[in-house]
Amino acid sequence: MAVLVIAPNERPDIWASYLRELAPELDIRIWPDTGDPDKIIYAVAWNPPAGILASFTNLKIIFSLGAGVDHLFKDPDFPTEVTISRVIDPYLTAGMREYVLLHVLKYHKNQPELDKQQRKHIWNSRENERLQSDERNIGILGLGILGTDCAKSLSALNFNVKGWSRSMKVIPGITCLTGLSGLNHLLNSSSILICLLPLTKDTEGILNFSLFSKLPKGAYLINAARGNHLIEKDLITCLDSGQLTHATLDVFRKEPLPKEHIFWDHDKITVTPHNASITDPRTVVYQILENIQRHLDAKPISNTVDIKNGY
Amino acid sequence: MAVLVIAPNERPDIWASYLRELAPELDIRIWPDTGDPDKIIYAVAWNPPAGILASFTNLKIIFSLGAGVDHLFKDPDFPTEVTISRVIDPYLTAGMREYVLLHVLKYHKNQPELDKQQRKHIWNSRENERLQSDERNIGILGLGILGTDCAKSLSALNFNVKGWSRSMKVIPGITCLTGLSGLNHLLNSSSILICLLPLTKDTEGILNFSLFSKLPKGAYLINAARGNHLIEKDLITCLDSGQLTHATLDVFRKEPLPKEHIFWDHDKITVTPHNASITDPRTVVYQILENIQRHLDAKPISNTVDIKNGY
Repeated sequence: MAVLVIAPNERPDIWASYLRELAPELDIRIWPDTGDPDKIIYAVAWNPPAGILASFTNLKIIFSLGAGVDHLFKDPDFPTEVTISRVIDPYLTAGMREYVLLHVLKYHKNQPELDKQQRKHIWNSRENERLQSDERNIGILGLGILGTDCAKSLSALNFNVKGWSRSMKVIPGITCLTGLSGLNHLLNSSSILICLLPLTKDTEGILNFSLFSKLPKGAYLINAARGNHLIEKDLITCLDSGQLTHATLDVFRKEPLPKEHIFWDHDKITVTPHNASITDPRTVVYQILENIQRHLDAKPISNTVDIKNGY
Repeated sequence: MAVLVIAPNERPDIWASYLRELAPELDIRIWPDTGDPDKIIYAVAWNPPAGILASFTNLKIIFSLGAGVDHLFKDPDFPTEVTISRVIDPYLTAGMREYVLLHVLKYHKNQPELDKQQRKHIWNSRENERLQSDERNIGILGLGILGTDCAKSLSALNFNVKGWSRSMKVIPGITCLTGLSGLNHLLNSSSILICLLPLTKDTEGILNFSLFSKLPKGAYLINAARGNHLIEKDLITCLDSGQLTHATLDVFRKEPLPKEHIFWDHDKITVTPHNASITDPRTVVYQILENIQRHLDAKPISNTVDIKNGY
């Protein structure tokens, strides 16, 4: 019985060393040094190369190192009979909360315009009267753990928050919406739109010209979910027309964002390198080990993913 | 009996129109159209020209339109027998909370460095491992209404917050300090320092080389109090040496900040035009009118200033 860490671009050695430190009795391996593939019962995975997971015939649980699981489902040979457990990291949630608050407040306080004025030595303390937080409507797409936390944190600062999700949620202080009419209602009023959706076939490309056109003119976009939620050329069109004032993007269709990509130099786009929030091995390894023990004891695994829904 | 609005650079017409709308029975005048100076019993003031207030021999109360009252005391002829009442505006508090959270999170998430990387098309998602909020120590100088609110708001995001004030405060979750040893203790641990002090003879120039030198190397400064708290050349020295990484300044010794001032183009300084937070006439006018009524009824005036302490 062995645990395989398969996270080619994410320092798998760090994850392995934390696992070994806390559970020296376990046989921890790092891909591609897999050894006998029939021994692999558990995989700790982020962005595994396609086809690899299917080769472990006794694989029982995949622990996904992050909030989204689209990195697994993009593998056409993904073994759908295997259980997937997402790690739920309070530091990942806190990091996303900080990122979303930072960039919402940046827009709420008109900081991109103030930055421009600084470059021109312009002192303009009053011209653009700002909204109070209780006059500011913010829309959040996706009310999973991250979206719900961000909604509550923004509401605590007295912003008016609407949230939209596939299944109906109830969150005190938040207007929770679902369905197409709910989406339209949210878009019509949101001067700041935040995407924290899972990436599924239903949400791929959801951030497009039609959606942006339903926002109030001059709205702001924050995408901290997945690059494939966004139709990139539609964003440029809407920034150029003034339908959108500015966008903050942490995720991209191709990562790292290619050196020659138009986003880097666009003066209405903030690019961050997919580091809005990072899973912390220190807290996550405990959850993985606890779930392995639960599996050995034939108890239910926590934080499992519904493979049919894709999240 | 008349009320004089004397706020030369702050749209006195707006304040007067709000007052007239809510209290049409009052005689509201706007300086310099003062009429008979002996009729002026109340002044609604921001940055009144020196010597003017002393000319109203029957003046009883000055309502200061903002958190600090140094704009009154800099007048050598200030009539010290007059009562000063500060307006306490929940929107002013909220605006400052938003400003402080924005710029603290900007530093906490290393955004100035990410902005530089964007300009160079550099994708560096992992190199600088960041602190979690519960590993981040923040120091706040000044625990008045604004400082206390900011301390609580930062603590709610799990930052470790220390606050320093002249008189000892007790705020749940905040390490409250006083005196020189308390100040040194705060400085030694604070990687982000926020100044929200009143400007008095004791705090003028407090943000100087000696103080910066006690901070951990590479600390960040946010000054949203008064320009005269800061020794400007000491800030430049400490930014150039790397003792400070970056500073965000909303207030300056001379405002508007002169076009040729070194701060505008310094790549380690964010300049905002003294608009971190703005008193909202809609909420404040009620307080002024209520205090006028209390004065007419011979009841105690609220939110008065201790002239001896200077705040």
